[in-house]
Amino acid sequence: MNIFILLFNDFRKLDVFGEIPEFTLHYCSLTGGIIHSSHQVPVMTTMLPSVLPDSSVLFIPGGMGTRLLVNDKVFIRLLTQTIPQASYCLTVCTGSALIAKTGLLDGKKATSNKKAWSWVTSINSEVDWQHCARWCVEDGLYTSSGVSAGIDMALGFVADLYGKERAILIANLMEYVWNDDYDHDPFCKS
Amino acid sequence: MNIFILLFNDFRKLDVFGEIPEFTLHYCSLTGGIIHSSHQVPVMTTMLPSVLPDSSVLFIPGGMGTRLLVNDKVFIRLLTQTIPQASYCLTVCTGSALIAKTGLLDGKKATSNKKAWSWVTSINSEVDWQHCARWCVEDGLYTSSGVSAGIDMALGFVADLYGKERAILIANLMEYVWNDDYDHDPFCKS
Repeated sequence: MNIFILLFNDFRKLDVFGEIPEFTLHYCSLTGGIIHSSHQVPVMTTMLPSVLPDSSVLFIPGGMGTRLLVNDKVFIRLLTQTIPQASYCLTVCTGSALIAKTGLLDGKKATSNKKAWSWVTSINSEVDWQHCARWCVEDGLYTSSGVSAGIDMALGFVADLYGKERAILIANLMEYVWNDDYDHDPFCKS
Repeated sequence: MNIFILLFNDFRKLDVFGEIPEFTLHYCSLTGGIIHSSHQVPVMTTMLPSVLPDSSVLFIPGGMGTRLLVNDKVFIRLLTQTIPQASYCLTVCTGSALIAKTGLLDGKKATSNKKAWSWVTSINSEVDWQHCARWCVEDGLYTSSGVSAGIDMALGFVADLYGKERAILIANLMEYVWNDDYDHDPFCKS
């Protein structure tokens, strides 16, 4: 399965997809070229295809870069056109703000990082924001809270696609203690 | 302080240096160009300078790529010439095999990943290999066991350079439980 990872400067890395042999990763950006993560890693990207192949997954990271991008009309328009082409769209942390901005989450359950909660939810009040959730899924749109919740979500995505046994196997290979219950959010005070 | 991170294909990423504001990171390789991590991340590199600036740090990651590189005479010769130019040289995991191959660790304490122990130590029996150690330091050469031990070592390096308070501050910002005792190795059965 092809995963298109849409990068932007000052994105926060989430490397879990590289652990999953079923996925072929494509590191993309709006224009191609070198994109720097919030950890200063210069990642080489190709331009995001204007038309995604069938059965594609789009992954959008979070990070401080989202604060500027949410007001970047070219980027948000591209996202609005691209997300409906993907079979699934996944994001973590403040990446939810970018999808929320497109309007494609309106009326749908979604979550985000609690440390950026008031900012993210202020982007679009039409989203059915879930404060207590490790991750949310609705109509193929996956959103998660912090970076580590993103690992839980990615494994949940593997479970949805290939079955829970497969996800458990990958978690064990990573020596990762998978929180497999999207409703169990240890960082939620409710 | 300049940190030159010498990458090679199929290296295992260790992103902790990006968390440390005192460090300016330079992603390098033997020839420059795009290098792929074991997680398929395409990282853009520049050619490693033939002469390192004063007060430089050289960091060498581990990863499956070391298995081939240990027999790459051009790479090992470059390493042999470059390490003595650096004020400090740090490595994690199987990166120890590369430094061991240069002979610069002969008679010095060093460690490596326990899962690759027999291979790494077979590269050079003149090294004073320490099976039970989170990390080792001798003559400015830092070696550590697994990837997570590399985080402990990097924070230990910060403590050596800037004091323990500074290292604790960075660990707290990362929400990382720092094992600050290089002799305390929870994965050692002795």
